[in-house]
Amino acid sequence: MADGFKIGLLGHGTVGAAFAALLDERVEVVEEVVGRRPEITGVLTRSRGDFDDILERSDVIVELIGGSEPAADYLLRALAAGKPVVTANKQLLSERGEELYAAAHEHGVELRFEAAVGGVVPAIRVIGETLAVSRIERVHGIVNGTTNFILTEMTRTGASYADALRAAQELGYAEADPTADVSGADAAAKMAILARLAYGSVVRLGDVPYEGIENVTPEDIDYARELGLALKLIGSAARVDGGVAVRVYPAFLYADHPLASVNGSFNAVTIESPAFTEITLSGPGAGGSATATAVLGDVVSAMTHQTPLILPEELPLVTDVASAFYLHLEVADQPGVLAQVAELLGLQGVSIKSVVQKGLGDDARLVMVAHPVLESKFRAAVELIGRLDFLRSPPRVIRVIEEHFG
Amino acid sequence: MADGFKIGLLGHGTVGAAFAALLDERVEVVEEVVGRRPEITGVLTRSRGDFDDILERSDVIVELIGGSEPAADYLLRALAAGKPVVTANKQLLSERGEELYAAAHEHGVELRFEAAVGGVVPAIRVIGETLAVSRIERVHGIVNGTTNFILTEMTRTGASYADALRAAQELGYAEADPTADVSGADAAAKMAILARLAYGSVVRLGDVPYEGIENVTPEDIDYARELGLALKLIGSAARVDGGVAVRVYPAFLYADHPLASVNGSFNAVTIESPAFTEITLSGPGAGGSATATAVLGDVVSAMTHQTPLILPEELPLVTDVASAFYLHLEVADQPGVLAQVAELLGLQGVSIKSVVQKGLGDDARLVMVAHPVLESKFRAAVELIGRLDFLRSPPRVIRVIEEHFG
Repeated sequence: MADGFKIGLLGHGTVGAAFAALLDERVEVVEEVVGRRPEITGVLTRSRGDFDDILERSDVIVELIGGSEPAADYLLRALAAGKPVVTANKQLLSERGEELYAAAHEHGVELRFEAAVGGVVPAIRVIGETLAVSRIERVHGIVNGTTNFILTEMTRTGASYADALRAAQELGYAEADPTADVSGADAAAKMAILARLAYGSVVRLGDVPYEGIENVTPEDIDYARELGLALKLIGSAARVDGGVAVRVYPAFLYADHPLASVNGSFNAVTIESPAFTEITLSGPGAGGSATATAVLGDVVSAMTHQTPLILPEELPLVTDVASAFYLHLEVADQPGVLAQVAELLGLQGVSIKSVVQKGLGDDARLVMVAHPVLESKFRAAVELIGRLDFLRSPPRVIRVIEEHFG
Repeated sequence: MADGFKIGLLGHGTVGAAFAALLDERVEVVEEVVGRRPEITGVLTRSRGDFDDILERSDVIVELIGGSEPAADYLLRALAAGKPVVTANKQLLSERGEELYAAAHEHGVELRFEAAVGGVVPAIRVIGETLAVSRIERVHGIVNGTTNFILTEMTRTGASYADALRAAQELGYAEADPTADVSGADAAAKMAILARLAYGSVVRLGDVPYEGIENVTPEDIDYARELGLALKLIGSAARVDGGVAVRVYPAFLYADHPLASVNGSFNAVTIESPAFTEITLSGPGAGGSATATAVLGDVVSAMTHQTPLILPEELPLVTDVASAFYLHLEVADQPGVLAQVAELLGLQGVSIKSVVQKGLGDDARLVMVAHPVLESKFRAAVELIGRLDFLRSPPRVIRVIEEHFG
């Protein structure tokens, strides 16, 4: 086995701790993919650790302390020492990104920062790699989870801004001082980073005009709904007249816009180009373990330089799987039909979630959705139902995908 | 300047021709990012070109001929010669992927295939790189644009399967022989590739049970709508009982599922994990220039090995930008109000798209959406409107994002 690869971790707050925990959980898989066993050689917080010592002993530096200084000093020194850097620091990148990009380039070393924008939403990788040489016309993003949560609450419950903010604070989606989020400043920093990547323009935080959601009223949202619109805090970076305009503001979206259905604390980014129409990426915008996933993806990329061809697990194939089901029956309209169908389903452990019955002259249609059950069980029940003499045509079965994760 | 980098192009059909055209258009940008000027050194079709000669003179092989043979032979020889390979060949990868992965690994050379699944939707890069070491619980995908177009038409118009298929054929979304698409076989090949990447399981096309959409009826879709569901052809690869189940079938999705709102010929993939909840990627599933974008992204990645830090363009910042606007006015309920407001807007070239007016005792609310206009013009009109004596409170303005690309 080759030597381990040594990670110097700066910061041990929510994301730092989640990163250390995730690395622990995935250490075998990382070792298999990278070919070297990862190991945290030092952790720097305000009260422990020495940066020079950690730098000396690390192959890669993961910066999760946030803020401009001392983060900038640490990262510039790491890059100068030829050590790849992974950071989630949007403030630093939006204020002093040029220095960092230049240092990484000068020393021929990787600087990765997926977690700085949109949590685990892979906007940086897709814009910076898949679309590195594409002509991007416009980037629209919901890049702040706190404001999206508040606007979703206002839309869902009719609450005022103040009440929705309070609910967000109680649930931990907004901080005690929510100014950076609700003013649009946080989104502006992220849009500065995305615009730099998409257009090559040097955009600093101070260059991005922003408006927040503090003055949005429930009436705005009501009227918008009448007009078929959804209200979101949008970050926009677009080609305009041979230049690029980067701004953050509350905006209405038509219901068929891919960002219109991004709700709660989720983030999303839509990238538009005549060559490929649009690509939309969405996912959780924050949360320690989601952000840690993005950081770990960057660490692995910085330590390998290609798509891993040694794949981590080999799971056997399974064929009988639980699923919810839709069952459509055409039956004679007579008493006892539903009871007999329900009994046969019940015998196989199939439980019914909803039923719609409709008369059709002498016949009736019976449509039901069953809770998740092993497919073999459901098929066995349907096989027996298919033999009932009041059935007018073979039963029709379609799987139903239940609500997804989270 | 360093030597150019030489691309051997196998195939010159829709995607091959689009790739050549896109490369031509972006040649300067590619040169800046990669540091070498790209050049197509040879094109192999059935009637022209010699593979050995092209291989000899190329730094990277781009395979867009499709099918198993002679593609497999060409790619295995390219990998053995240490030349990186980019391919869009889902059939080859789902049938003989193991040989190719092994050859790439053995010779330490890159094999990239973003365009083989989901067109420009970056599922391969995100699963294979961002999430390379993450524990993925489930992958759900709409990975066939033809069937999604047909199901969307059936839902939108109430058409039968046969009529919607005919419409798809007339519009070029379905082939004369649509079997591979409508049977689910095409989606099965793509899910085999995604499952291989997400779970490390060796999954071949023959291992993936699939059902198509040929038997879906307008009634299924009607009933589904009553139950709050949308019907999609879903590819699913999920951990089940210590194994992985990979299947393709028509399924209903609850309206809040991120795939439920993916319509027309678009593709999308949702990746679920307890660590990050879910990530959804969506975009056009096919089309020469979208697919060519994915191929070019892979070519650039294969020729560099890091996020490009030399960024291609430097566009100046622009601040006055056209946008659609929502305007909310509280006014005295008297004759001529709308006329005066409309006149002031008209003087600045602002054209109204929709208006809602509501009485409130002596007052009224006037809410309108304006077509896109330069912000300075709209603000100038609002400034004048704000001075009208029948106004009861300051005008409220929110931008409206018009329908996106395409």
